[in-house]
Amino acid sequence: MRVTVTGASGFVGQALCKQILASTDWALTMVDLDLTWAKSLDYNQLKLVEGALQSEEVRQAAVGASVDILFHLAALPGGAAEQNPGLSRQVNLDATLDLIDLAASKGNKPRVVFTSTIAVLGAPLPSPVNDQCRLAPAMIYGTHKAMVEMALADLHRRGQVDAVCIRLPGIVARPAVASGLKSAFMSNVFHDLKAGQAFTSPVGPDATLWLMSVSQCVANLVHAATVESGRLPSNRAVTLPALRLTMTDLIEEVLLQTGAKSDLITYEKQPDLQEHFGTHPPLITAAADHVGFKHDGDVQALVRSALSSI
Amino acid sequence: MRVTVTGASGFVGQALCKQILASTDWALTMVDLDLTWAKSLDYNQLKLVEGALQSEEVRQAAVGASVDILFHLAALPGGAAEQNPGLSRQVNLDATLDLIDLAASKGNKPRVVFTSTIAVLGAPLPSPVNDQCRLAPAMIYGTHKAMVEMALADLHRRGQVDAVCIRLPGIVARPAVASGLKSAFMSNVFHDLKAGQAFTSPVGPDATLWLMSVSQCVANLVHAATVESGRLPSNRAVTLPALRLTMTDLIEEVLLQTGAKSDLITYEKQPDLQEHFGTHPPLITAAADHVGFKHDGDVQALVRSALSSI
Repeated sequence: MRVTVTGASGFVGQALCKQILASTDWALTMVDLDLTWAKSLDYNQLKLVEGALQSEEVRQAAVGASVDILFHLAALPGGAAEQNPGLSRQVNLDATLDLIDLAASKGNKPRVVFTSTIAVLGAPLPSPVNDQCRLAPAMIYGTHKAMVEMALADLHRRGQVDAVCIRLPGIVARPAVASGLKSAFMSNVFHDLKAGQAFTSPVGPDATLWLMSVSQCVANLVHAATVESGRLPSNRAVTLPALRLTMTDLIEEVLLQTGAKSDLITYEKQPDLQEHFGTHPPLITAAADHVGFKHDGDVQALVRSALSSI
Repeated sequence: MRVTVTGASGFVGQALCKQILASTDWALTMVDLDLTWAKSLDYNQLKLVEGALQSEEVRQAAVGASVDILFHLAALPGGAAEQNPGLSRQVNLDATLDLIDLAASKGNKPRVVFTSTIAVLGAPLPSPVNDQCRLAPAMIYGTHKAMVEMALADLHRRGQVDAVCIRLPGIVARPAVASGLKSAFMSNVFHDLKAGQAFTSPVGPDATLWLMSVSQCVANLVHAATVESGRLPSNRAVTLPALRLTMTDLIEEVLLQTGAKSDLITYEKQPDLQEHFGTHPPLITAAADHVGFKHDGDVQALVRSALSSI
């Protein structure tokens, strides 16, 4: 099985690649701007492709003779995309479509696993979110993700690829570096409290968040690579299940598991972050549940998993 | 007012340009692959740009220093797009986005009138069609139109353009030439019966169609250029009102107005055409009605208008 992962140096990408290397015999091609972290890995059938997907040469190297499974995770994140719409078009739309078209052109109908986002459904999200919700993105990141979802549904219909788009909720805990993600606070709560440092929440105590640990996210990505194609809806996209927690629920469990003191916490609500990331409605994911995608189970398991990843 | 019309040699494009020249003092730029029909026109402030919009040079000439209104009608039609998906991406997606981005880059927030299609809502269409329907295109033509709708909604949100997307029903009567349109039969019924020739309907007598005459379509396009921006929904797209007729209703009125005999008519249902063009459900266009878009009024007016255009 020839498998390519783009965005392989990203937070989710690294975790996915490590899982693939540890648990499969797949021939893995990793693609990212900088793959320094992977250069000391010692595996047969591991290929590293450094460069930007806007380059035809990089795309050719990413696909090679053909791929059986293409995990396309590379993207300019939401905050950075909003700052640089032109680059978002290049990376999140044009190069993405070019890469997928190239993989499709080999004629072997590859499985394409595309990481989409709940942002395709809008901000604030409709309530409840279910499989009948319209695509109604409110920012350029979600707009380009939605456009690629539609292109993949069409390529799938025409028999060129076997497409599976999964819409990710907030994944925790991301590294505590500036990542261009507006949702960084969801991860910083883990880092700051684990380090015994003050944490200021930019959303209120009753803000509701959809969260998934990175290890659960990787399990869902691997599942997306092998899920039975015919059981997915014709738009080829599912909103993943996620735990729905209030900011208070999350903080209390992180305090409990880290032993940090509650006086480290303050709240300074930022209206735009509250609107985009703190008003997640009830979530009904029948299509994803039906084919076996899962959330972390409960808040204890989520926090344990997230803390173990940092 | 500097106005550009792409697809200016098309069926709707020619009618729109003639209306603009006859009734406004706008400085008009026409863009199409071949503008022979327009070369004998004698108007001040008329500029002709011949070439493909995939060319940067053509796009620069189309936009010039800036445009106040961009009517973007140019497209590879549905049947041709399905035959040549790569060209559909070039014309209906990439060049379209490049042109709109270029017009937006001039900084004057141009009104962009984009002719979308009811095909963005799927085939068969959901019943009834209303403003809550999801984007669910079933062919590549509708897929690319839906992707551009989403890109325009995002550009509008960011204040780069003032976007108005109108989803057209079947427009009649198109010229009786091979146009790559799968819906050609809707127009051929007018041509064949006006000429006293046999007409074979590829959809059944009870097939339901949404139709609009070309003159009504032009009136709606001109309305889209000047409609008050704030009264449109945030996705900037409206499904236009249309008359909903059965094939029998349409044929009987065409027979009446042309004096043709009913024994010219036979029915040979083609399942794919029946599915895509002969199952149009009840249509509720509140958002479009609210801002003043209109259909032809009744079947007599529609048929009279369509017959007068051929």
